[in-house]
Amino acid sequence: MADVRLLYLNESVQKFGIERKTSRFGVLGVPMDITSSFRPGSRFAPHKVRQVSQFIEFLSLRTGVDMSEVGFADFGDVILHPSDVAENVERISQVASYISDQGKVLISIGGEHTITVGTVLGVKADCVLSFDAHLDLRDEYMGYKYDHACVQRRLSERGVRIMEIGNRGIGRDEIEYAKSMSIPFITSHEVRVLGPKEVARRTINFLETCNRIYITYDMDAIDPAYAPGVATPEPEGLDPSTVLDIMNLVIDKRVVGFDVVEITPSYDPTEITSVLGAKIILETAAALKSKSP
Amino acid sequence: MADVRLLYLNESVQKFGIERKTSRFGVLGVPMDITSSFRPGSRFAPHKVRQVSQFIEFLSLRTGVDMSEVGFADFGDVILHPSDVAENVERISQVASYISDQGKVLISIGGEHTITVGTVLGVKADCVLSFDAHLDLRDEYMGYKYDHACVQRRLSERGVRIMEIGNRGIGRDEIEYAKSMSIPFITSHEVRVLGPKEVARRTINFLETCNRIYITYDMDAIDPAYAPGVATPEPEGLDPSTVLDIMNLVIDKRVVGFDVVEITPSYDPTEITSVLGAKIILETAAALKSKSP
Amino acid sequence: MADVRLLYLNESVQKFGIERKTSRFGVLGVPMDITSSFRPGSRFAPHKVRQVSQFIEFLSLRTGVDMSEVGFADFGDVILHPSDVAENVERISQVASYISDQGKVLISIGGEHTITVGTVLGVKADCVLSFDAHLDLRDEYMGYKYDHACVQRRLSERGVRIMEIGNRGIGRDEIEYAKSMSIPFITSHEVRVLGPKEVARRTINFLETCNRIYITYDMDAIDPAYAPGVATPEPEGLDPSTVLDIMNLVIDKRVVGFDVVEITPSYDPTEITSVLGAKIILETAAALKSKSP
Amino acid sequence: MADVRLLYLNESVQKFGIERKTSRFGVLGVPMDITSSFRPGSRFAPHKVRQVSQFIEFLSLRTGVDMSEVGFADFGDVILHPSDVAENVERISQVASYISDQGKVLISIGGEHTITVGTVLGVKADCVLSFDAHLDLRDEYMGYKYDHACVQRRLSERGVRIMEIGNRGIGRDEIEYAKSMSIPFITSHEVRVLGPKEVARRTINFLETCNRIYITYDMDAIDPAYAPGVATPEPEGLDPSTVLDIMNLVIDKRVVGFDVVEITPSYDPTEITSVLGAKIILETAAALKSKSP
Amino acid sequence: MADVRLLYLNESVQKFGIERKTSRFGVLGVPMDITSSFRPGSRFAPHKVRQVSQFIEFLSLRTGVDMSEVGFADFGDVILHPSDVAENVERISQVASYISDQGKVLISIGGEHTITVGTVLGVKADCVLSFDAHLDLRDEYMGYKYDHACVQRRLSERGVRIMEIGNRGIGRDEIEYAKSMSIPFITSHEVRVLGPKEVARRTINFLETCNRIYITYDMDAIDPAYAPGVATPEPEGLDPSTVLDIMNLVIDKRVVGFDVVEITPSYDPTEITSVLGAKIILETAAALKSKSP
Amino acid sequence: MADVRLLYLNESVQKFGIERKTSRFGVLGVPMDITSSFRPGSRFAPHKVRQVSQFIEFLSLRTGVDMSEVGFADFGDVILHPSDVAENVERISQVASYISDQGKVLISIGGEHTITVGTVLGVKADCVLSFDAHLDLRDEYMGYKYDHACVQRRLSERGVRIMEIGNRGIGRDEIEYAKSMSIPFITSHEVRVLGPKEVARRTINFLETCNRIYITYDMDAIDPAYAPGVATPEPEGLDPSTVLDIMNLVIDKRVVGFDVVEITPSYDPTEITSVLGAKIILETAAALKSKSP
Ligand SMILES: [Mn+2]
Ligand SMILES: [Mn+2]
Ligand SMILES: [Mn+2]
Ligand SMILES: [Mn+2]
Ligand SMILES: [Mn+2]
Ligand SMILES: [Mn+2]
Ligand SMILES: [Mn+2]
Ligand SMILES: [Mn+2]
Ligand SMILES: [Mn+2]
Ligand SMILES: [Mn+2]
Ligand SMILES: [Mn+2]
Ligand SMILES: [Mn+2]
Repeated sequence: MADVRLLYLNESVQKFGIERKTSRFGVLGVPMDITSSFRPGSRFAPHKVRQVSQFIEFLSLRTGVDMSEVGFADFGDVILHPSDVAENVERISQVASYISDQGKVLISIGGEHTITVGTVLGVKADCVLSFDAHLDLRDEYMGYKYDHACVQRRLSERGVRIMEIGNRGIGRDEIEYAKSMSIPFITSHEVRVLGPKEVARRTINFLETCNRIYITYDMDAIDPAYAPGVATPEPEGLDPSTVLDIMNLVIDKRVVGFDVVEITPSYDPTEITSVLGAKIILETAAALKSKSP
Repeated sequence: MADVRLLYLNESVQKFGIERKTSRFGVLGVPMDITSSFRPGSRFAPHKVRQVSQFIEFLSLRTGVDMSEVGFADFGDVILHPSDVAENVERISQVASYISDQGKVLISIGGEHTITVGTVLGVKADCVLSFDAHLDLRDEYMGYKYDHACVQRRLSERGVRIMEIGNRGIGRDEIEYAKSMSIPFITSHEVRVLGPKEVARRTINFLETCNRIYITYDMDAIDPAYAPGVATPEPEGLDPSTVLDIMNLVIDKRVVGFDVVEITPSYDPTEITSVLGAKIILETAAALKSKSP
Repeated sequence: MADVRLLYLNESVQKFGIERKTSRFGVLGVPMDITSSFRPGSRFAPHKVRQVSQFIEFLSLRTGVDMSEVGFADFGDVILHPSDVAENVERISQVASYISDQGKVLISIGGEHTITVGTVLGVKADCVLSFDAHLDLRDEYMGYKYDHACVQRRLSERGVRIMEIGNRGIGRDEIEYAKSMSIPFITSHEVRVLGPKEVARRTINFLETCNRIYITYDMDAIDPAYAPGVATPEPEGLDPSTVLDIMNLVIDKRVVGFDVVEITPSYDPTEITSVLGAKIILETAAALKSKSP
Repeated sequence: MADVRLLYLNESVQKFGIERKTSRFGVLGVPMDITSSFRPGSRFAPHKVRQVSQFIEFLSLRTGVDMSEVGFADFGDVILHPSDVAENVERISQVASYISDQGKVLISIGGEHTITVGTVLGVKADCVLSFDAHLDLRDEYMGYKYDHACVQRRLSERGVRIMEIGNRGIGRDEIEYAKSMSIPFITSHEVRVLGPKEVARRTINFLETCNRIYITYDMDAIDPAYAPGVATPEPEGLDPSTVLDIMNLVIDKRVVGFDVVEITPSYDPTEITSVLGAKIILETAAALKSKSP
Repeated sequence: MADVRLLYLNESVQKFGIERKTSRFGVLGVPMDITSSFRPGSRFAPHKVRQVSQFIEFLSLRTGVDMSEVGFADFGDVILHPSDVAENVERISQVASYISDQGKVLISIGGEHTITVGTVLGVKADCVLSFDAHLDLRDEYMGYKYDHACVQRRLSERGVRIMEIGNRGIGRDEIEYAKSMSIPFITSHEVRVLGPKEVARRTINFLETCNRIYITYDMDAIDPAYAPGVATPEPEGLDPSTVLDIMNLVIDKRVVGFDVVEITPSYDPTEITSVLGAKIILETAAALKSKSP
Repeated sequence: MADVRLLYLNESVQKFGIERKTSRFGVLGVPMDITSSFRPGSRFAPHKVRQVSQFIEFLSLRTGVDMSEVGFADFGDVILHPSDVAENVERISQVASYISDQGKVLISIGGEHTITVGTVLGVKADCVLSFDAHLDLRDEYMGYKYDHACVQRRLSERGVRIMEIGNRGIGRDEIEYAKSMSIPFITSHEVRVLGPKEVARRTINFLETCNRIYITYDMDAIDPAYAPGVATPEPEGLDPSTVLDIMNLVIDKRVVGFDVVEITPSYDPTEITSVLGAKIILETAAALKSKSP
């Protein structure tokens, strides 16, 4: 394994779920937590999500797939610069491309949402489906372009097509940008009215022309009752089954990667946010496996 | 500012949200926490709710109002006696009347529910709409008339008309008193069956003859999953969207004040109860603004 | 009270709710917590559930029964061996039979789910209705037959008929065993689709031929948002009202005992899981009282 | 037991340590927590201290006394008014006198320090030895005479002689009052310089003319490192061994009661403050037993 | 107040202790928390330290100074860039110089230790006395020059003379740099052997030729038992009295500023670290007041 | 690596400190936590101690050894039976002997103290030096011979010579057994009087005739102020520097293994107990390295 991109990999970490080196699912921890403006600590999420993943059930009832048979190939954590976000996005992108080049579906565990800029570019996705309380379409945040509130803007600027679901903490400028760039978003209020099936129908429509799809789960998309341990909890969110039902209806073999970001263990004393993060990874991988066995 | 009622104001506190002295919304912290019979600590809620209010989004999707443009005029905290509740109710009433006299809509952050006796009297409301797991219609609690379990009884005795929503921890004597005084209440079970629109219809009906309306959100009205950090959590509560949808349907320019009470930060390690409290303040103010621009 | 079965009773504990020695409801704490493979601490649940039971309302709105008039006869805690589970199951069974022989409905507060083997045998139930995220039908867990993951299997092997509701963390071997033994189970996904009334109808059907019914509430049946403090939280669970509605529809005077197990106070900093456990006890007792006054 | 003073006793609580009704040591829980101006929650201390008392060792190395042989007679908790401190002090006094009249040494577990006014009067002590970060000699606190900051002042006014040890959070007016009333106090800084033996010598001197001695341990006397879970932590306190060494040197059979107050379990997540409180009770009882077998 | 340096000041915050605008002590919150490599959260310390400062005693026994008479002039918080540390150091420096130019002694509350580069330069100190578990003399940390592990190195490079006390988590390269630059340091082990008086003597010696002295208290200098809530707890630290005794012996009117940094409230559930931070501020200000009335 | 003893090794875990496969120090996690009678959770200690070991400094000031150059060879965790302690002791012993046979010094991280029976037998030690609040010399605990309170008794019965330091929670029967078997113990009170040097002298004396020495650190030996997160905190313990000073004076190349046990992360919210555990491992390894380079 002499690929230069491995210089940024720390392999001495707890492994996710049941390890199986030949699994098509390549797990990557990305403990970056620099621009979290409210509650920091997402840096500990890769560690914690892997820990609780040892204890949950691996049979997906939604799909019938038993992930204990499929397993996960855990590549470890990206080694990060302490404060240079642009440098980190580059490192993440390189490690993600390394894993992707081996034919793996990339599963990355954040860290703050900014890491998704790196992973999406690394796996060369042309479309992103984002579950998020926020649109993350800010041009900048307090003068800074690589903030977690700007993730989808940065990707959109590089030609990646974006669709967002579950949003409710939104700025006026973001709505305008979304309109100008034809970025569809379905707020959490609309999801409640429309129901998962109609949301899935619209999403499938959006994804039709995509070749390489990436799904990002900002855990704050979920209601704080179910996912209290996030950097910026925002009331009136989605419930987990709605998110997983939508995912299960829209996913197919074009998905080249997905991530779970913004889990903040220090604000999650009951650990239910990390457990839910692990569950979302399992169900998404199982759905993908069931669609392309 | 030589009004004698200001003697009881401590202004050296963190301010709520974005400060704007000319805003029509006057915020008042009331850190009283004396009669909490189960879990104490609501004294810290004004401080905590203000802190988290710095980090949430200010654009209300329900109404289209951007509260960052409206802002809040925060008057600080009421200075309280350590154990004399009657004295404190009097002080709260005076400070509330001072703020009300300036043409502001009073937004008070408790503290235990007992503070509402003071604020309602201070703003001279003739009707109270209460979201609460409890009826708070006890004549006395262990021989004490100013307990948080007696709030609505004290107000009712002074001629204020009361309507209650979301109740489920109720005593037989309270039901009888409510009947005898024509105090309508809709339990959380009934809310689930009726739906927010029908509940709103009945509420609008009740409010028809009111001149000065006051809304009180005892946070225990909300289910403990969404609002665990309260003095007396009671299962089978309302979900936040139901509460906000009802509020949004019934509110109009007759509202002269509202409060959020019973948040107990020491039992809210994830801070989601305080975040929800701040959100309820934002949405209620935005709704009011949208109804009377 | 010279019954030899009392040797295993520690009476010097906090009592549940309002004590009334003549009540038909006999409370028993069973602080066993040995085989919890993930998060330990259910040993503290009897203590904590009794503590919070002092502070909740006793009038059941579902049934109109006021449990403060009925009260509870609290027998204290079973004295347990530090690591011999089989020995403990025997002790629990003996103490349970002692309470049952006095004509009491047994209410036991776990402890891990394994205690249910003892209480079911002690009260000589022929049918068990189990709310649980898991089927607990493992033949063994890491070579061990008395694990909490094997509870229903052990009971089934002794001829007790089982029905399960709310399951979602399931192994393939368990599904096969359930089929082979005609153990019906309704997953949490199915409960959501069917609704409480249809679930109740199927349950009543199953219970038709039973003589002595036992209900066990593994608190992980409930969604982690409502019951975070359990040994193995599993996303996508039931909400409390659904559980209580089903219970209220199916319960009748054949119920000889019930329990609340797997509450883990050290992972319940907001105490809402313990409060919900106390509430489930109150509502179930009230429903039973209303069905056989 | 028809004594009218028993009306205020709730016996349905967890018992302290090993119960022995004939023990000379009478335990009383006093969960009053009304005037705590900073961090509330001492109301839960009787419950918590009793819980952890089940798990500590009972052999006192300092004295050679094995308290598991002596045991404790736990009378339960005083039933308190929710906000009337004067009324509560009266109730506490009556229950304390009842226990004292039976020839027991009273051991009371607070609750805020104000309870000591009641217990000292109840056991008719003429001298109080107080370990406390504060002098508690305020005439009033915010206009209130029954605040926890006024305890020793109230007792001094009724002719009880006071000596204080470990103080460091002190007001100028308190120093003056202490001087004017010949109330000796040894600050924590002075204790460090003098050493336990010299402090004990001075204390023995002070106690010489006393007939009925009462010791009160305000847990904030101890340094916050050892006792973080108190209402008002104050740095630079005493270490536990120093406190216990002094106690052991000065105690004799004239001691008619002692208490441990101001433990605040909600600020004691590691429980070490409650464990230390239980330990202080054990060592003090053991020392008393060793001095008058 | 039209000074351009005020652009970076947020005044809408809770104020420290008792506010007195004319006090010679100017308080500044600096919630920067970007390079914390282990446990983040020091951004919340200014808020928390100010909150607990409301509840502690203001009379300093060490000096006889009553700080409630002196008071503090709290200027609020520095407004910071979310990730550009160099930019922030510049802002901090400007605001610090503004406060210093008004003749105030600057008291800054961090935030991570990196803020001290800004405050020291802002107040134009020529000497720094640092209490710290670490030497913070790294040339860089993972390629980054503005890390909290490099604070003293950056200052040393700009000609500021440094002395350090209480160190124990040290790298070999730091020892060499210290030697080469004649930076004296006294490890925590040496402090224990030498005693506060000898340490003070050596410090006074070092300070002899200084004109403008700055003291920085990295709270991790203190042992984790007394100060658990810091970013990088390191065992075998100093006890608080030793630190304050040394400070009291060496301080004089040449001190132009001091700070308390690295408090991390999310790892301080008992709040004793924040209380100790507030106490250190009080005692240092009192000592300074007593030396130059 | 086809040794059959490796069947019980799970290697997919976070590694301790800086990994170096050729290091003479072989780390082993032993997450057994079955007989903890008070506070469970030591099963999570291997995971947590390894996590915090990533963040502490590796240069030992006591010895001058830089452990980042030496590194650790982490073998992973022992795979354990969920409730059969005897079986687990056998597994632990086998894995320990495997590591020992490779010429490594075994460093095991518990888990409850019972694991030490397995590791001592596995490394064929003839002498054990134990730091512990307890003597662990019970013949049985509630009828059980493999309880954590019986560890040293079980070893003593197999001919291993024992010496104990820091004890204070002791039963009379243990004192008698210690006398009858010539097991020297120095209580924490005696350590305070004697000082580390005299304690070391006596220990060296005891160890004179030993060939293979094993050191076990039950973290409850340390005072709860420094190590709150243990299963059974016992006041009046040793301070960390005393323990490390004694260790450093007595250690030599005969030491074939050591362990840190009884850390309980769920009662250690500040993580200082785990950090101290990691530090003790570093200092002990460094001392050993310095004595036999
Ligand atoms: Mn996002
Ligand atoms: Mn988001
Ligand atoms: Mn209320
Ligand atoms: Mn209520
Ligand atoms: Mn179960
Ligand atoms: Mn279960
Ligand atoms: Mn006191
Ligand atoms: Mn005190
Ligand atoms: Mn530093
Ligand atoms: Mn430091
Ligand atoms: Mn031990
Ligand atoms: Mn021990």
